[in-house]
Amino acid sequence: MSATFVIAQGGGPTAVINQTLVGAVLEAKKRHPGAKVLGARHGVRGIRDGDYVDLSAVPEAQLRLIAGTPSAALGSTRDKPDAAYCEVILAGLKKAGADAFIYIGGNDTAGTQQILTNAAQGSMAFVHAPKTIDNDLVDNDHTPGFISAGEFVAGAFLSVDLDFRALPGIYVGIVMGRHAGFLTAAAAAWQLDETSGPHLVYVPERGFSVKRFVDDVKRTMDRHKRCIVAVSEGVTMEDGRSLVEHVVPADKLERDAHGNLKLSGTDLGAAFEQALATGLPGKRARVDTLGYLPRGAISMVSPVDAKEAFDAGAFAVDAADKGGGSVALQVEGGKTVIRLVPLSNVAGKTRHMPADFLKPDENQISEAGMAYFKRLLPKKFEVGKPFV
Amino acid sequence: MSATFVIAQGGGPTAVINQTLVGAVLEAKKRHPGAKVLGARHGVRGIRDGDYVDLSAVPEAQLRLIAGTPSAALGSTRDKPDAAYCEVILAGLKKAGADAFIYIGGNDTAGTQQILTNAAQGSMAFVHAPKTIDNDLVDNDHTPGFISAGEFVAGAFLSVDLDFRALPGIYVGIVMGRHAGFLTAAAAAWQLDETSGPHLVYVPERGFSVKRFVDDVKRTMDRHKRCIVAVSEGVTMEDGRSLVEHVVPADKLERDAHGNLKLSGTDLGAAFEQALATGLPGKRARVDTLGYLPRGAISMVSPVDAKEAFDAGAFAVDAADKGGGSVALQVEGGKTVIRLVPLSNVAGKTRHMPADFLKPDENQISEAGMAYFKRLLPKKFEVGKPFV
Repeated sequence: MSATFVIAQGGGPTAVINQTLVGAVLEAKKRHPGAKVLGARHGVRGIRDGDYVDLSAVPEAQLRLIAGTPSAALGSTRDKPDAAYCEVILAGLKKAGADAFIYIGGNDTAGTQQILTNAAQGSMAFVHAPKTIDNDLVDNDHTPGFISAGEFVAGAFLSVDLDFRALPGIYVGIVMGRHAGFLTAAAAAWQLDETSGPHLVYVPERGFSVKRFVDDVKRTMDRHKRCIVAVSEGVTMEDGRSLVEHVVPADKLERDAHGNLKLSGTDLGAAFEQALATGLPGKRARVDTLGYLPRGAISMVSPVDAKEAFDAGAFAVDAADKGGGSVALQVEGGKTVIRLVPLSNVAGKTRHMPADFLKPDENQISEAGMAYFKRLLPKKFEVGKPFV
Repeated sequence: MSATFVIAQGGGPTAVINQTLVGAVLEAKKRHPGAKVLGARHGVRGIRDGDYVDLSAVPEAQLRLIAGTPSAALGSTRDKPDAAYCEVILAGLKKAGADAFIYIGGNDTAGTQQILTNAAQGSMAFVHAPKTIDNDLVDNDHTPGFISAGEFVAGAFLSVDLDFRALPGIYVGIVMGRHAGFLTAAAAAWQLDETSGPHLVYVPERGFSVKRFVDDVKRTMDRHKRCIVAVSEGVTMEDGRSLVEHVVPADKLERDAHGNLKLSGTDLGAAFEQALATGLPGKRARVDTLGYLPRGAISMVSPVDAKEAFDAGAFAVDAADKGGGSVALQVEGGKTVIRLVPLSNVAGKTRHMPADFLKPDENQISEAGMAYFKRLLPKKFEVGKPFV
């Protein structure tokens, strides 16, 4: 029976992370009449600084409006607390009178909850509620935020493919994704027919070779007169280094507090432009960086994603009452079910896209991959087949 | 009384150019029972090569499906015919038995129709039906394709602004627009409140200075802790050269058949990253190139835009029966009306964004500009105000 909840949002925002927030607030109030729910601003920073919003005092209508709004309404943070920082957070939570702390985020966020759980020695409950457009949480079939972002990417590549049927050429679209290629691979979900782009998909899970890339594009241009390419920001060379590290001089590489390399789509885009200008001179080629657009697009909030995110938030309150853990979206009999799994299963780990989601000898999505993406991202638009 | 129509699509595709195509086909069949409507593949190239689709034989249900599909179903071209090429086209049209040629496109397309009109000496009717996401046709209040693309841009910047409230920093989004800034300025249409981005808007109509840009960003960061910037690809330095020309070595600049400079968002993005890294070192900054995404996004087809585009196509048939000209969208008493204007009013001319759409002393949209964009792009989403 928790009566004071602290809740926060961590990592990159999504289109539906506020659904999870509001799902938790409303469930806490329902289960624990008179409960206080404090929202910490900018993740654990708000706990460190005592910077809270009393979410239990916000009218439900306003909360529902916020639930439908993309991005993290409480603000977020990239801080990845170490043991010392976690002591400060724990002291802050105690000062706030917290019985439970629900932290919505990805695998780094789960890692923070793991450290806090160990440090608190049972004095309060720590729950990780899942959120990531990367879809890379272990023990999850998919993650809240991924469906909306995936539909954005699927729609973008369907649209660009139609565009390049009309005016042939080469298109490279660079998609977020540091270690996992799910979001990039989602580009194939709404392909119109067997000639549709993306014709080539490059993800972090498979080593990248500039020479093979140019060959792949040449072959596709010969076959289809256009070539649509989806590339993850985190695509890595066969030597294991990120393509960005390969392209940007070492003294210009930037890293965040987690030691993560700054993956600039612009640098990567320049590398692709250069590779195409050298390997296929004179061909019309265009590189776009989708960057931030898919992850919190107000025009592409999926109702399914929104509902699952809300339910995951509500479930997090149940999980807190049961002592903590990580909330996971799994699929049974074709239906999404929400389960409680140990934090240690999720914390700091990356679920990669399964190797068999790619064809073994081509940079294209396999039947197994297409089955997954078509299940998660059923087509939303009926398309008339062009005359060209 | 035209009985054989040739119809084609030119220039960059839009989300609704197929509405105009189908509007014309259905109207031609209605007005002229038994009429033949030949769709030329890839614009005037199809006429040159005798490469047609018999659109009058396509079932209406299939046409309606194509109407709702973005991009140019007949294919498009960047060819800008000179007098000699126009003679070839005219011969092709005569061979096809054309009584009228309807060409859907922008000001270059209108230019082709002008040359053909002069060359044909009254032997057939030439109609320009408007299409451009650039919104830059003279005598038009706005153009088919602009509303859908504008809503995409407005939604993207609203979403990115919410994202950067959660994780503060600098964002630069690069938007298509060679000579006219309308589409870039549309980024401001759905601002949530007076603190919302885009905080800075740079369009081709106003000279660009890197120093002032850095100062603008600094001042915005001091005030809002985030800075969202919308930039047109065609932004020009105060010396009149495109910023891309300023950045890319002369021997690497690419031009198309119209002599238009290739405006690579990637090159421009790199210039902005460099300006920010130098002027505001250590600040989190991110540049994305929206590029092709807004112009034919299947997720953002505006019903208003679709209807206007369809009606413009139907009106083009009436215009053909009356001897030809350019179809224009104008506004009277708050309502869009379709009028026939002389080709010479539109051909080869660019309608720039009015100077008073920008504040005189700041790179922000003025009240006059906001009134225009809010009229054309009314808000589509209710947004809950974040707690940060």
